[in-house]
Formats: sequence, structure tokens, C-alpha cells
Amino acid sequence: MTVPRSHPRYESLRIREMVSAGFLSGAVALEGVMAHGRGEAFDYILGEETLLTAKAAIRAAAATLLLSSHPVISVNGNVAALCSKEVVNLSLTSNSKIEVNLFYDSIQRRRIIIGMLYRAGAKEVLGLERHSMIKGLESARRMVSHGIAQADTVVVPLEDGDRTQALINAGKKVITIDLNPLSRTARTASITIVDNITRALPILSDYCKEMKGYHTEQLAEIAEFDNMANLKECVRLIKERLDEYIDA
Amino acid sequence: MTVPRSHPRYESLRIREMVSAGFLSGAVALEGVMAHGRGEAFDYILGEETLLTAKAAIRAAAATLLLSSHPVISVNGNVAALCSKEVVNLSLTSNSKIEVNLFYDSIQRRRIIIGMLYRAGAKEVLGLERHSMIKGLESARRMVSHGIAQADTVVVPLEDGDRTQALINAGKKVITIDLNPLSRTARTASITIVDNITRALPILSDYCKEMKGYHTEQLAEIAEFDNMANLKECVRLIKERLDEYIDA
Repeated sequence: MTVPRSHPRYESLRIREMVSAGFLSGAVALEGVMAHGRGEAFDYILGEETLLTAKAAIRAAAATLLLSSHPVISVNGNVAALCSKEVVNLSLTSNSKIEVNLFYDSIQRRRIIIGMLYRAGAKEVLGLERHSMIKGLESARRMVSHGIAQADTVVVPLEDGDRTQALINAGKKVITIDLNPLSRTARTASITIVDNITRALPILSDYCKEMKGYHTEQLAEIAEFDNMANLKECVRLIKERLDEYIDA
Repeated sequence: MTVPRSHPRYESLRIREMVSAGFLSGAVALEGVMAHGRGEAFDYILGEETLLTAKAAIRAAAATLLLSSHPVISVNGNVAALCSKEVVNLSLTSNSKIEVNLFYDSIQRRRIIIGMLYRAGAKEVLGLERHSMIKGLESARRMVSHGIAQADTVVVPLEDGDRTQALINAGKKVITIDLNPLSRTARTASITIVDNITRALPILSDYCKEMKGYHTEQLAEIAEFDNMANLKECVRLIKERLDEYIDA
């Protein structure tokens, strides 16, 4: 499909095409295509823009990453299809490792996704082989590489609630990017960025770059974050938007 | 995937599997898989139940169908994957024709969907051949069979806004089933049922059966319907649900 740049839905349709291409190339599971649709609906309700609440969460996330000793970015098929370059960039600005971890796992999908990340400029991608186990998870995802196993902070964008809970139980800080502010993942994570990953990741990288020279005390202050209060404020903003629709 | 009936997400996961199966069988387009995800998100926000506003819309829709001389149910891949039997049942209770009409059209998909409807018990399915044109539509969908061409009322579940507008412009009454109360389709249709199609269609059939003996005047009164007022009330109910989340 050729969508002209002037089309009002250009950005949304462009992203949709990336997911479709990801499915056809074997990186995105069919369930991931559906999950993208869910994300589209929530983004539509947000007004397809990064809310002030999201910016606050991104700022706290950047400080948290810079304070971490072993930060890791967990990547699945949708993340790779939408933002391989942005993941690589964030790994550089935040000094994080990259690890592939899939809900609908297969060695072939892992390989395809790792290839995408290398083509996007990654120096090292973990996750092809798995030696460690996260307790409290039934699915194949309990098996992880040494990146997530040793991490103190994990960025898990587009994640399922079980895994977020298991990582929290394992004593790790979890930063998630989830367009549904009501999801279990959103409520379980240490920091939830309610935003489209394609908008949020570049901002997160920018904040990491900007704060690189900050003192530890300064970062610790910025990293202080009340996740539930932020989510509630986000839902309040969504309700305001619905009011505009009603009055329109 | 085998999901136990006791699983809290059983119904949603069962429906998801029907869409996946529809994709694998060639009835559902990849874009339809994504669209299902969008519907899931909106249904989640509704609380996955038929709201009172939806019941009111369904009642008006039933009366409108019974008052129509040439009602037609337009079916696409997602509708066939989710409710072929319910479509056949509604065609009997409302004396409506069935016509296949696809956004991502191909003769092969049309054939697959027509086959599904015949297997579900349909006596006649239109749409394989197209002789007529709906004005004001750019896409392949402007071509229709004589069912939609001659219809005075068209049920268009899971529809795009352009087509709804074109059918309205052609002087037809349009009944849509759309989980997004803010969509252009929802705002354009004569009657919008904001509900999951798998819940709404059986209720619509039941109302048609129940009202079969009603007088024309009685039906005309029930068919009187303020669509925008109903949509606004629906959005108000959604906002109330969001409040419960905030307070939870």
C-alpha cells in the first residue's frame, strides 16, 4: 500500500505496514498483529500524542536507567518490527544490553529478530541461548539469557502482565511501555510509560543523553516516581478527551 | 491453544482463536486481524458486556429491519469468521438477504466466505458477482450485487466510515455494529450498536422474532432513534467505568 505523506492517518498507517511486514518476515506472531490493533485503539483514545503524564514517566525511566548497574532492554517481535533502530540507540544512550525474549517463542523467530537488531546496528544481542530461569513463570519466557538474569532494571515494552510480575518478584525494576493504562502490566511495573513505543523510545534516548552528566543525587530525585498516581492522572486526561468527543 | 472454560478470559480468547483460524483459512485479511485487536481494546473498555445503550440500539435496529422492504446483511471476513451462523439466523428472523462485500477484496476471499455462510446454513449468498455501483466510493467496494444495490436497509457490521457514508448518501438506512463509539462509522450510521458482534447479533435476532407480530405503527415508534444521543450516553457510561478503575 502506498499512503501519501499528506494523509491524515499517515503515521498510523505507516506503523501498521511495519507490523504487517514484520508478520510476513516471521518476526511478528499473528497474536502480535492483534496486539498491535489493541494498541492502535488505545492510542486513538489518547489522541495519538505523548501525554504530559507519559513525559514524566519517561523522565523517571531515563534517570532509573542511568542509575542502574545492569540495565537490559527486552525485545519481542513487535518491538523489533517497529523500532529496532530506536532500541539500538537507547542501548547506547543508556548503556543497556539488548535481549530478545518472546511470548510465542521459537528459535527461528528469535533468529529473525536478532538479525533485525544486528542490521539496525546492534553490537551484541542476547537471547539466542538461554541458561537462566525467572521464577514464577509458566511459559517458555521463564528461560532467559544472562542479560535479564543479571539485570537490576529491565525495559519490557509491549509486555504481558505475568512476566512483569515475575521480574518484579525477582527484585528487578521494570520499566514498561504500554498503551493501556488499565492493564495488569501497567499496574505492576515500577514505571509505566503509557505511550506509543515509536514516540516514547526516541524521547527516552534524548532524556538519557541529556542527563548523562547529572549527579547521582540529582538522578535519584528524578527517578522517584509514583506509578499509580501517574496512571490515575493519565486516565483523567483520557476522560477529558472523551468529553471533547461528547461535546463535538 | 487449548483454553480451559474456567479461564477468566475464556470468551475473549475463544473469539481470538476464531479470528486466527479465519486468517489461516483465508477468510480474514491481515488487516482484519489488526482490526479485531482494535475491537478487543474497545470491548475491554466497555467491560465486555452489552450496555443498556446498545440494547436500545439493537431494539431500534430490529424494528427498522422488520419495517424494511429489502433489508440486506453485508458480510466481510471478520463477520464470517466470528458469526456465520448468527448471520444466517438473523437473515431468517429479519427476512434479510446476505451479501458478501470486502474492503480487501479478492474473488478467492469472496468464495471462501460464501462457502462459510453456506456451511452455516445460508440458502442464498450474494456478492460473488457484482453488477451495480455505489456512488462516492473509490475502493473496490463501490461494486455491489443486486442485494445491496436494491436494499432500503443495510446491516454493515465492522465497517469502514467511507462505505457507511456512501450507503447513507445512496438513501439507505444503515445499521452498524461497531465497538468504537467515536468512529466515523458510528457517527455516520442511522443506528449504531456499540457492542461485540458476537453478543449483539443473537440479541438482534431475538428482538426480530419477538416483534414479528407487532403492528407497523408500533414498529415505527420503536424504530425512532436518536443515534447521536445514544452514542453520547454510551461514552458517558464508558467514563463511569474508567472512574471505577481510577478508584480501584
